[in-house]
Amino acid sequence: MVGKSQIKFIKSLQLKKYRKLNGLFVAEGVKLVNELLQADLTPEGVYTTDPKLLIPQFSSFEVISESVLQKMSGLKTPNKVLAVFRIPESKQAVLEEWTLALDGVKDPGNLGTIIRLCDWFGIPQIICSEDTVDCYNPKVLQATMGSIARVKIVYTSLATLLKDSEHSAWGADMHGENIYDLRFPTSGILVMGNEAHGISDEVGALLAKKVSIPQVGPSTAESLNVATATAVLLSELRRKGS
Amino acid sequence: MVGKSQIKFIKSLQLKKYRKLNGLFVAEGVKLVNELLQADLTPEGVYTTDPKLLIPQFSSFEVISESVLQKMSGLKTPNKVLAVFRIPESKQAVLEEWTLALDGVKDPGNLGTIIRLCDWFGIPQIICSEDTVDCYNPKVLQATMGSIARVKIVYTSLATLLKDSEHSAWGADMHGENIYDLRFPTSGILVMGNEAHGISDEVGALLAKKVSIPQVGPSTAESLNVATATAVLLSELRRKGS
Repeated sequence: MVGKSQIKFIKSLQLKKYRKLNGLFVAEGVKLVNELLQADLTPEGVYTTDPKLLIPQFSSFEVISESVLQKMSGLKTPNKVLAVFRIPESKQAVLEEWTLALDGVKDPGNLGTIIRLCDWFGIPQIICSEDTVDCYNPKVLQATMGSIARVKIVYTSLATLLKDSEHSAWGADMHGENIYDLRFPTSGILVMGNEAHGISDEVGALLAKKVSIPQVGPSTAESLNVATATAVLLSELRRKGS
Repeated sequence: MVGKSQIKFIKSLQLKKYRKLNGLFVAEGVKLVNELLQADLTPEGVYTTDPKLLIPQFSSFEVISESVLQKMSGLKTPNKVLAVFRIPESKQAVLEEWTLALDGVKDPGNLGTIIRLCDWFGIPQIICSEDTVDCYNPKVLQATMGSIARVKIVYTSLATLLKDSEHSAWGADMHGENIYDLRFPTSGILVMGNEAHGISDEVGALLAKKVSIPQVGPSTAESLNVATATAVLLSELRRKGS
């Protein structure tokens, strides 16, 4: 039986403040929860309206009614499974080959989409500035489509990291060099900036190179969305064999 | 003075049903409204809490209070300007050079992001299947960041169009040929499918080629988001000079 106070507690984890306080986050939906159950994460509670939807090797769950799920859920249309997981201990950034760094990305959908991109393009780790949106935000988790289980996310001071790193950093910038004309080094850090303001001055000053995606035709479009720009840059990185 | 019935009418345009019925749509925010006022569109009403925010050449507006704007708006945090525009007469699809076609894209954020991508990469027209989300949906408009003013959108039967067209169609498909190894023809139609189901069987049967973006490393990621996949494919198209 799931009591009122437990429902209220789970609902509170929609907010970053309570996720931090308790070291827990909530994941919803059959696909996302099953991906996380197969990853190296500790489930603290798994709730479902239909146990057949969970991966067969997982047997420790509570069956709940649709109306209890509705009360626990942060979604308008809850999707049969909800689980509470422990937030992994925060890890040290370990730079190998290519790493993606995010400098103040604020939109949960963008961060989630970028995590999914890194999973696709084989980038094992994302380093986020402290002011980047929390990767355990429910909207981020939804947008990752489960890729959060396979990409390591580290929050730290980007400026400190870049200063101490022997890897050179390339940053996306509207006035940078044409990415199609460049060869990527065999290792490095690719930095993407905030949706409205781009890369901060502090981090910008530490870049070895600024790169851009050429615009075509007479458009007056000001920029690409940060997730789509990341898609193009990671595709270029992988196409060229780095 | 903006009366209660007018507020109610404007609010009703959040729904596709009332947009279709009245041939009108609502745009919100300083940037988006100013971009649309400069485009070839007919404004039926422009409301602002601060007239200095509108482009100077535009002088026919009503000044309203924050609380009236709040009542008219579909946004949680309304952004100072709201305008009602006439939906342009639906145009014939005219195929030149490269055209993007969307087969059942449902998510407003994805469609808006794809419109912004086409603006950036110089694709003047998007052809949408009838079941693709309405491009005058407020969430689509927000995600376009004003690019809706510069990209022509046509809704039609994709199957009929492809059958009648002399341009060959390439479609994004998980099992398609590696896009990095291919040369694009000088003209064509690039088809992107639905978020969950990809390209429909009917449209798939009319494709000249299926293309894919190679996955890197050991990930079990199932797919890329349709907007980020479109970003990579349009980048490849332009990089190769088509």
